[in-house]
Amino acid sequence: MSGVVVRDVERADPAVVTALGACGVATVHEAQNRTGLMASYMRPIFAGASVGASAVTVLAPPADNWMLHVAAEQVREGDIVVVAVTSPSDAGYFGELLATSFRTHGGVGLVIDAGVRDKKDLTTMGFPVWSRAISAQGTVKETVGSVNVPVVCAGALVHPGDVIVADDDGVVVVPRTEAVTVLDKARARLDKEAETRRRLAAGELGLDIYDMRERLADKGLDYD
Amino acid sequence: MSGVVVRDVERADPAVVTALGACGVATVHEAQNRTGLMASYMRPIFAGASVGASAVTVLAPPADNWMLHVAAEQVREGDIVVVAVTSPSDAGYFGELLATSFRTHGGVGLVIDAGVRDKKDLTTMGFPVWSRAISAQGTVKETVGSVNVPVVCAGALVHPGDVIVADDDGVVVVPRTEAVTVLDKARARLDKEAETRRRLAAGELGLDIYDMRERLADKGLDYD
Amino acid sequence: MSGVVVRDVERADPAVVTALGACGVATVHEAQNRTGLMASYMRPIFAGASVGASAVTVLAPPADNWMLHVAAEQVREGDIVVVAVTSPSDAGYFGELLATSFRTHGGVGLVIDAGVRDKKDLTTMGFPVWSRAISAQGTVKETVGSVNVPVVCAGALVHPGDVIVADDDGVVVVPRTEAVTVLDKARARLDKEAETRRRLAAGELGLDIYDMRERLADKGLDYD
Amino acid sequence: MSGVVVRDVERADPAVVTALGACGVATVHEAQNRTGLMASYMRPIFAGASVGASAVTVLAPPADNWMLHVAAEQVREGDIVVVAVTSPSDAGYFGELLATSFRTHGGVGLVIDAGVRDKKDLTTMGFPVWSRAISAQGTVKETVGSVNVPVVCAGALVHPGDVIVADDDGVVVVPRTEAVTVLDKARARLDKEAETRRRLAAGELGLDIYDMRERLADKGLDYD
Amino acid sequence: MSGVVVRDVERADPAVVTALGACGVATVHEAQNRTGLMASYMRPIFAGASVGASAVTVLAPPADNWMLHVAAEQVREGDIVVVAVTSPSDAGYFGELLATSFRTHGGVGLVIDAGVRDKKDLTTMGFPVWSRAISAQGTVKETVGSVNVPVVCAGALVHPGDVIVADDDGVVVVPRTEAVTVLDKARARLDKEAETRRRLAAGELGLDIYDMRERLADKGLDYD
Amino acid sequence: MSGVVVRDVERADPAVVTALGACGVATVHEAQNRTGLMASYMRPIFAGASVGASAVTVLAPPADNWMLHVAAEQVREGDIVVVAVTSPSDAGYFGELLATSFRTHGGVGLVIDAGVRDKKDLTTMGFPVWSRAISAQGTVKETVGSVNVPVVCAGALVHPGDVIVADDDGVVVVPRTEAVTVLDKARARLDKEAETRRRLAAGELGLDIYDMRERLADKGLDYD
Repeated sequence: MSGVVVRDVERADPAVVTALGACGVATVHEAQNRTGLMASYMRPIFAGASVGASAVTVLAPPADNWMLHVAAEQVREGDIVVVAVTSPSDAGYFGELLATSFRTHGGVGLVIDAGVRDKKDLTTMGFPVWSRAISAQGTVKETVGSVNVPVVCAGALVHPGDVIVADDDGVVVVPRTEAVTVLDKARARLDKEAETRRRLAAGELGLDIYDMRERLADKGLDYD
Repeated sequence: MSGVVVRDVERADPAVVTALGACGVATVHEAQNRTGLMASYMRPIFAGASVGASAVTVLAPPADNWMLHVAAEQVREGDIVVVAVTSPSDAGYFGELLATSFRTHGGVGLVIDAGVRDKKDLTTMGFPVWSRAISAQGTVKETVGSVNVPVVCAGALVHPGDVIVADDDGVVVVPRTEAVTVLDKARARLDKEAETRRRLAAGELGLDIYDMRERLADKGLDYD
Repeated sequence: MSGVVVRDVERADPAVVTALGACGVATVHEAQNRTGLMASYMRPIFAGASVGASAVTVLAPPADNWMLHVAAEQVREGDIVVVAVTSPSDAGYFGELLATSFRTHGGVGLVIDAGVRDKKDLTTMGFPVWSRAISAQGTVKETVGSVNVPVVCAGALVHPGDVIVADDDGVVVVPRTEAVTVLDKARARLDKEAETRRRLAAGELGLDIYDMRERLADKGLDYD
Repeated sequence: MSGVVVRDVERADPAVVTALGACGVATVHEAQNRTGLMASYMRPIFAGASVGASAVTVLAPPADNWMLHVAAEQVREGDIVVVAVTSPSDAGYFGELLATSFRTHGGVGLVIDAGVRDKKDLTTMGFPVWSRAISAQGTVKETVGSVNVPVVCAGALVHPGDVIVADDDGVVVVPRTEAVTVLDKARARLDKEAETRRRLAAGELGLDIYDMRERLADKGLDYD
Repeated sequence: MSGVVVRDVERADPAVVTALGACGVATVHEAQNRTGLMASYMRPIFAGASVGASAVTVLAPPADNWMLHVAAEQVREGDIVVVAVTSPSDAGYFGELLATSFRTHGGVGLVIDAGVRDKKDLTTMGFPVWSRAISAQGTVKETVGSVNVPVVCAGALVHPGDVIVADDDGVVVVPRTEAVTVLDKARARLDKEAETRRRLAAGELGLDIYDMRERLADKGLDYD
Repeated sequence: MSGVVVRDVERADPAVVTALGACGVATVHEAQNRTGLMASYMRPIFAGASVGASAVTVLAPPADNWMLHVAAEQVREGDIVVVAVTSPSDAGYFGELLATSFRTHGGVGLVIDAGVRDKKDLTTMGFPVWSRAISAQGTVKETVGSVNVPVVCAGALVHPGDVIVADDDGVVVVPRTEAVTVLDKARARLDKEAETRRRLAAGELGLDIYDMRERLADKGLDYD
């Protein structure tokens, strides 16, 4: 079962990618109609990181990290590597050596539906990772997979060049061609939320701000 | 299937509630005969928070956070909102906007057998949350549930007005009417533990402090 | 079903044990041919701790921590207590009182395939713990188990006196008699990695450093 | 921590209990407004069993089945024993010897938020069990618990004497005092479903039978 | 967040679909280079069923089965409904009434990344279902989703009209346009396996049939 | 990382092995002081099978079944192959072709801490398997492991030649050298249970047969 590496991948406008990252996962997910979110088991290895980046995708066999070395050559400034697996694994595919390599070529993070190791070093480097597990379990380099093909990672479909937004709330995928539209909607949301926040802090209730009382009564909610 | 909101809820004496919070989950759980503990999957979204508070309970449908807005109106000074779900969900029911609203009305935290989002903002605000998951997954406002009815949350029965003690070790429920008794027992435990700690630090063994050697021998423990 | 306590346990040379700890879990695991790693659900209760220590093993019944008091008497300078259970449990077997006792007798940490409590106090004390769960759930002292017998903990076989290396990446077991050999190999690995790191940081690719291109082509990897 | 056995428990009318059992879990759950269902991890050890019975409740320590022997004495004709645990366990609390005892005293099944063993013998006997696990793991008889106190079992609150309905779809609890009302509603549902089934089998669509088309359009559903 | 229903879906040749079903999941998965398999938690509700069918896809909210009624109208002879969810749920979306409706319109099964109920009735009807859970938990009809859009179900990407092959080993998706090619490869595999089976039954070893001995020696396998 | 195959393995007396199988898992587990049981996630792929057999052990990489072909050559009359993995996997390592080969050489079953496929064929053949998962996921043949070395499988330590007893209750390991002793104890247990069963069926209570009443009172059990 041979694999393929696609070298020519279109990315979104770097300014748009960065701006999407600044909006945060929850806002971007809402802005694109609640689609594209990875499963909630994808957790950051340290708190506080936040990225917007373009996906270099990897489809890797279980406990075999060979394709991450292949992917390193495809990493460009502002990219994040997104690793899906052909069968579940929590092995440690990635550590500080690969992070050094990715960063040298412009990589800004990793999303992997499996495990990583060297957590302390990665934290010290400030190289953000979202993963399913942290594990020292070593991997082999025996079976080829693919780089820059469409993959399903943690339940979300990712095409190479899609925009990945990741922070403490998880990871969301924005299709490359929708990046500008989603950014506009996300910014509109943030503006609206600022006003809502001000009103809530002043003591108003969501029940009134969102005009919910009548609809709740219609649905049969009783006050005792 | 209509729902109900109970507005008139008796709380325990605020001084007792606060004092129970200061005793910590492990001590309070022991003081009430090891009952009332929620399942260990309920984890704080940031380390170090510790609360004693009165429960405003919510029974919510899966991935529908409408009742949290209804609950906001029932929050009083020193309350914590406790959300149970009618069917398992890890969606993000709660974020910093609702936290702003709860806090404005006196709310001091959230316990939810589901997910929350805006982890970074909630951490910055210092608004403590104990949850099953962190997820950006959006929720709808379509189905009514209930507020201030008895609920089973993460395996523990909670009545509105019960005392919730939560810290890095988890969440425990103290029935409102037993709050004073449990506080007395918890304080007695803390006093006793101070003395035990001093003896252990001096090198004495639990085997001797608790007089275990004979009973171990009776049970057949052999030293080789 | 009676138990046994073995008092006379051989440990490895303390200098070797400490040096293995300094190499870290991922390196040690690789140095001994990727064996001896505990399951990835074993997580530190606080980040950044790192130990090399000699195992005092405990085989304990579910939700019964009696044997931890028995183990306390067997702890010597530089030891770590490793607790396996006869049936799965996430109860809180261990807290700051036992940590005080272990530390007083030279104990430097705990590894337990179950739960612990007093997370905040243990963190303040700087007493490292690797566990399956954090839970305030109290335990009983009713059933005897054994101390310093071979145990299977989180999928790894541990003999009393084996070397335990634990850090943010997990927990690995080094058989006592192989400690020196594994240390030599681990140090050789670290030396080699320093050179690889330098080359990767300079922009070279793993594909070239590890001479992978031909083998990838042989396996059928295509570039598009 | 001592326990209690309540001997005097009121049951519902046996005819009502049996009739509820005949309605099935899904129907009864709907008939009482979708409440009272245990978690979906509670599975029958063999397919096809179906019971309506009165609950004898047990609160048991992890991996300790002493209280099941105590419960045996409280079993009356038409009862089912419902076992909750104070801390999670998958040990095998129950096998064919206890089943023989329960059946001799009128017991018709077991619901346990833990494990059972002797699956093949229980199947041959036709003694139905709903459990979280099947495991040969032995239990001890060291710690007392309680019999016929309210318990939370697999997320559902059960009072002694409540009606338990269990079949291949899971386990639902009907509060004793609501048994007659719920039975009436369940029967009404079954009548209505018979008519719906006939219409669906004739090719009509739920869209038309339930008059959904307009509401779907109002909610914005588009046909492409 | 409105949804869409696509009515015009191309299916593969029914003879090819049926023939793929007869090849079985393991063979078809191998024949298409080990792609398209759903996660192993997707289990049949009764053993022995086996289907090849064309996918009518559904994207449904958690615990809301409204879109299954919408999907019923889109079912044609030889179709299987494939339900993905926007957020995890184990509720019982589907039972014998919907099965009656699907079957009346030509439906031959259901694949759902959530729960179903009426297991016994579905078994009696012989209507096969592959699901994540069995649960009586009722669902609502409040939020629209979509029908016949691409979905990710249990980790596999499914387009409407793709071929679904499901049996006791799980569920695999064959892209519609590759159905003929995959069928050819699957049949070639079956022919080859028949010969291998004959040789293995005669006592030959895979080591010799597949000519593995030299390569094992090259990889360093030692015989002791 | 090369592997090793040990060819010369001592087995227990076949008559003893068979007789242990006839005692069943629960009885054998009790007879050897409740040790040696594999985790409860190890389930038979079809109900009713029961074996006593000698272990041929395999340590296999994740999703790589090469070593099962190597093991086939080591299988002797009355053997069962026991597969542990170096990192968690649910891939389908084993199907009816390998079962044909194992059976031809005397193999009577498989125990695997991973997945298998061809469930229906294996059931038809009556070839019993205890596994963690059922999955069609294909495996590779790229990395060597070992055959007939000590392994930890599903939490239990297994040496080559140990006796494996497996039935609907799970899998238990009897060390080869203890087989005769354990068999004697198991038979004594069965005799004693026959008498207990007779008394329980006659209406006597375990409370009286095991003389529990006084000890329960001493422990503080109250009757209300």
